[in-house]
Amino acid sequence: MSAPTDARGSTFLACESGCPGRIDANEVRYRCPSCAGLLEVRRDLGPLAQIAAGEWRQLFDGRGPTRMGWDASGVWSKREWVLPEATAGEAVSLGEGFSPLVPVPRLAREIGVGELWVKECGVAHTGSFKDLGMSVLVTQVVRLRKAGVPVRAVACASTGDTSAALAAYGAAAGLPVVVLLPKSKVSTAQLVQPLAHGALVLALQTDFDGCMRLVQQLSEDPAIYLANSMNPWRLEGQKTVAVEIVQQLGWEAPDWIALPGGNLGNTGAIGMGLALVEKLAGVPRHTKLLVGQVESANPFFRSFGAGFRVRPTVVAGDTAATAIRIGAPVSYGRAIRALERCGGIVTSASEDAIADAAALADGLGQYLCPQTAAALEGVRQAAAAGRIGSKDRVVLVATAHGLKFTEAKVRYHEGTLAGADSRRANAPVEVEASLAAVRRALKERERR
Amino acid sequence: MSAPTDARGSTFLACESGCPGRIDANEVRYRCPSCAGLLEVRRDLGPLAQIAAGEWRQLFDGRGPTRMGWDASGVWSKREWVLPEATAGEAVSLGEGFSPLVPVPRLAREIGVGELWVKECGVAHTGSFKDLGMSVLVTQVVRLRKAGVPVRAVACASTGDTSAALAAYGAAAGLPVVVLLPKSKVSTAQLVQPLAHGALVLALQTDFDGCMRLVQQLSEDPAIYLANSMNPWRLEGQKTVAVEIVQQLGWEAPDWIALPGGNLGNTGAIGMGLALVEKLAGVPRHTKLLVGQVESANPFFRSFGAGFRVRPTVVAGDTAATAIRIGAPVSYGRAIRALERCGGIVTSASEDAIADAAALADGLGQYLCPQTAAALEGVRQAAAAGRIGSKDRVVLVATAHGLKFTEAKVRYHEGTLAGADSRRANAPVEVEASLAAVRRALKERERR
Repeated sequence: MSAPTDARGSTFLACESGCPGRIDANEVRYRCPSCAGLLEVRRDLGPLAQIAAGEWRQLFDGRGPTRMGWDASGVWSKREWVLPEATAGEAVSLGEGFSPLVPVPRLAREIGVGELWVKECGVAHTGSFKDLGMSVLVTQVVRLRKAGVPVRAVACASTGDTSAALAAYGAAAGLPVVVLLPKSKVSTAQLVQPLAHGALVLALQTDFDGCMRLVQQLSEDPAIYLANSMNPWRLEGQKTVAVEIVQQLGWEAPDWIALPGGNLGNTGAIGMGLALVEKLAGVPRHTKLLVGQVESANPFFRSFGAGFRVRPTVVAGDTAATAIRIGAPVSYGRAIRALERCGGIVTSASEDAIADAAALADGLGQYLCPQTAAALEGVRQAAAAGRIGSKDRVVLVATAHGLKFTEAKVRYHEGTLAGADSRRANAPVEVEASLAAVRRALKERERR
Repeated sequence: MSAPTDARGSTFLACESGCPGRIDANEVRYRCPSCAGLLEVRRDLGPLAQIAAGEWRQLFDGRGPTRMGWDASGVWSKREWVLPEATAGEAVSLGEGFSPLVPVPRLAREIGVGELWVKECGVAHTGSFKDLGMSVLVTQVVRLRKAGVPVRAVACASTGDTSAALAAYGAAAGLPVVVLLPKSKVSTAQLVQPLAHGALVLALQTDFDGCMRLVQQLSEDPAIYLANSMNPWRLEGQKTVAVEIVQQLGWEAPDWIALPGGNLGNTGAIGMGLALVEKLAGVPRHTKLLVGQVESANPFFRSFGAGFRVRPTVVAGDTAATAIRIGAPVSYGRAIRALERCGGIVTSASEDAIADAAALADGLGQYLCPQTAAALEGVRQAAAAGRIGSKDRVVLVATAHGLKFTEAKVRYHEGTLAGADSRRANAPVEVEASLAAVRRALKERERR
């Protein structure tokens, strides 16, 4: 079956808080001209809904990594729902998406849920889920340039996965990338991905907020395109995670999708993806969301506890889960809408609990980043409290590869990770170089 | 189409040097009882060849990451060619295989070949291609235990990717794993993967050869199963890389497959995979192999230069490509057979050249490990010498994720990597926190 090219809903930008008016997709804008709130990418679903649900499922199932070209990408295999106007030649792809969805029955038993699956979004070109969004954002920039918008560079303020993914996709597209950072946060080790990808990494004599202000000022000039998470195009790529999870379960929605919550863009994106799956692929909606935060940075947890009536301001404290160390989440409103639409809960985990959850999962063959461990600990808490049923099917979204968090894992197993009591720590055992000594060590371990 | 379960060729072990006799697949043996040479896994291809080539291709194309269960695995989606006797319940899978095959046209132009694709085997659960082989090996141990062989633990001597993959798959299967190491090579950072996966990591007062001797002695007891690269089951998983590459190219064989060469198991495995693709899937064989070594550990390059008439002994020296720092490759014979069957060449690269090749590729959006960079440099050499034609389609097998080699990349960009002149190094740029200063820095970069 060929792509329903006649079913292209035209894409535009609109205020996500509901101010009226459409903004042309090729306008370089990140804020609503009326209320200065965030924008979102929208399209008329009418033409897409003309295609029968079964046809969409069949179309998408006919694509995948065994196919050639953009059909092999998890993002672009869903292109009609992502950016129907893009052509194969424009799409900037590094094999993003179609990450493994791995059943972990032994971990499910330990945690006390019916079924548990890990969606390994960190098994990716740059090692995190950010690839999904950056593939769309960089493609959109390629399209802007083709349309005559003189974009000279793409910029972000980030110390982590965002700058790595932006730099990789920018490099693949031949697009200059600028990364702004506080001078105190700059080490080659931390920044080796954007540096290796040739980004211009600027170390500024200011703090992170100062960098954010500067990158926003810089991108008031449409020639410097802003790639931080207020940019709505990234969510178009990220929402495919939800579509992919449902597809990989044979077009059945799980009971829960659990994910870490920091800036909350992913929470919003997964809500968007689930809505599309219901509306266009005809999969009944019953998936609830679990957003796992950490105690030192849990504004969304507090807000949830107050029925989303207040928006607490939190000064984020130290945590091993550095990627969700965020006090004022950009996608706060998007995430509330996703939770209200899907139903669900927000949890908060101590440093000890996330370290223990990661060690438990790793000991059963996983290799979780601290952020994902926060979400896993949330699942454990919710199962213990009876919020997640003992027969529920839960998908845990692993947002980064554990290889990006080697230091936290080393510290845990050396017993020096802040706030963690390392009760599952495993250390090398020194023995004499003889068969007898090796056998003795093995016997000893078996007795434990 | 359902699986042709009646087309199961029964699997057995045999001497790879041709000594007569079949060894039962459930016998725990790693060496030929006659000549003490390595064994290989064989099966009668007769029943498999009864299925038409087009049917195999259709069957395999109907599986993949959009499907459920073991169909989603790159290894187990080819189960009839890998281990037809295994059942879905026995297969230990962590979503291995179906890694991205990414076209890199800009890198192809720089290197001087017609088409270049990177097969990103490092985009994997443990970050390297070793997952493919370990999935089969650990499954075979599960089957042995079911058949009554009292395997208590699986053991290897390794400081690197092998121990990480074995520990992850062992942990997923609930199988104890023992890793033997020289005490001098033991740091928690290096070993954090096997430690996190709960392996018993033994630090011995001996060198690496001493550890290899001990692990082989230890596994004379069939209760301790040997997972080092002499174990032939791993190649059964690794060979699926070649099948997958051809499948991902729409069942067309590339002109060249380039890969790094250390212990040479992968070279043998890719030769095996290409032979199957020709025999069973009817894809004409014309793929040549390029095996890239490094100057400090190039016994296979020297042997190739001498027409494989001599087997040079090499004491491996220091290299950034630590995973192929091997003087006496275990799979030497297998690799020669693969090269003789497919045709091809062996190259040798300096430390400076591999560092430069990695930096070039990274700057275009890749993130190569030093081993893969050695193979890329081999491609560059062969293209410059006219051995690879300017219209040839080349697939570069990336064997590990660059995230596993952060230190080498940091050193390169800091200008301290041994043997490398770092001419593509990129460092953070300090500027004052003002819009004018940031704009100036950007302009300056654009002028370069």
